[in-house]
Amino acid sequence: MHLYSYYRSSATFRVRIALKLKGLDYETIPIHLVRDGGEQFRADYRALNPQCLVPALADESGLMTQSLAICEYLDERYPEPPLLPDDLHGRARVRSIALAIGCEIHPLNNLRVLAYLTHELGHSEEEKQAWYKHWVRSGLEQLEARLARDAETGRYCHGDTPGLADCFVVPQLYNARRFEVPTDGLTTLLRIDEACRALPAFREAAPENQPDAGGSR
Amino acid sequence: MHLYSYYRSSATFRVRIALKLKGLDYETIPIHLVRDGGEQFRADYRALNPQCLVPALADESGLMTQSLAICEYLDERYPEPPLLPDDLHGRARVRSIALAIGCEIHPLNNLRVLAYLTHELGHSEEEKQAWYKHWVRSGLEQLEARLARDAETGRYCHGDTPGLADCFVVPQLYNARRFEVPTDGLTTLLRIDEACRALPAFREAAPENQPDAGGSR
Repeated sequence: MHLYSYYRSSATFRVRIALKLKGLDYETIPIHLVRDGGEQFRADYRALNPQCLVPALADESGLMTQSLAICEYLDERYPEPPLLPDDLHGRARVRSIALAIGCEIHPLNNLRVLAYLTHELGHSEEEKQAWYKHWVRSGLEQLEARLARDAETGRYCHGDTPGLADCFVVPQLYNARRFEVPTDGLTTLLRIDEACRALPAFREAAPENQPDAGGSR
Repeated sequence: MHLYSYYRSSATFRVRIALKLKGLDYETIPIHLVRDGGEQFRADYRALNPQCLVPALADESGLMTQSLAICEYLDERYPEPPLLPDDLHGRARVRSIALAIGCEIHPLNNLRVLAYLTHELGHSEEEKQAWYKHWVRSGLEQLEARLARDAETGRYCHGDTPGLADCFVVPQLYNARRFEVPTDGLTTLLRIDEACRALPAFREAAPENQPDAGGSR
């Protein structure tokens, strides 16, 4: 398998965790999202993935895109260990936690949105940071309320086994720390994040441990 | 089943289509997203769904949120007719089309984001419209490139049976028309949208056919 990846891409980080939790081997193909105007816009990559986003995962069945779709594929193709629980309501719960991050928080803060705020709308660095912090903080607060309330929350987002929801939580908290979003009061999320980061799969998937880390930003 | 719904909510529209495609009965509980500062923020609804968003679906197993998680639940609980194809690569493809809308287009244009642009950032109605059109148009162009290229595209997004991806495409094109986003050149998407809207499930799920339609905006 080949993973088109950028070390700092939060969406790719999710897929790396899933691959590592499953114990799957893959080769990283770095796509630098910033250098030279963004390698994701190169004609060869655009032909592969017209959305010009990472991650993309290629195997003998072809190329797949969108982090959640890739994680679901990996879970269907390589069922052990499972990323989703067996019971249908639990599966819906786990997916909805992943989507609370994937649809409600992350899309507002990716590179192209921040670039639009700066270039098209003329906002200052300070306003851009405030935007970033607003959506991450409010999204995480809502998620915290839910995780703190639900009996299904365990050592990880759903019970005592790491799974799909954790693949989304850890990269989002990584970004929150990177951009200095206040995390006070997010007790459950921080506890889960710490439990996850104690596991090799999450550490190995982290940005700083990628082959393309450490180059120019 | 009870569906917490707002007739104009694009995410709820997706779930309504899925319910109708499956031929499932449900009761609509209207949550007006605009009136009185937004009924989704009422204490009783917040207690049910701390994200304060629609849709939410309640059945004997409990409450579920996030449109894609609900659609996946419906497909697992009521397998016929299926919303996803059988083959794993096809399933990943369909999910990634849904997510290209659910993660890349829609989150940038929901009510709370548009309100932030106006209130916190002080943008004019014209700048807000430009933002809206930019993200919808660019996202749909990328999706069009993909659908036009892929051999799997048929009468609908994936082959000749309506499914999960179509549940996402039709509400997004509905919004595009409502907000006068140019749709020229989106040949494949418009053809699929038309094919879907010829089906009773899509028509019955449309905003104008909801019990809470037609009241004050």
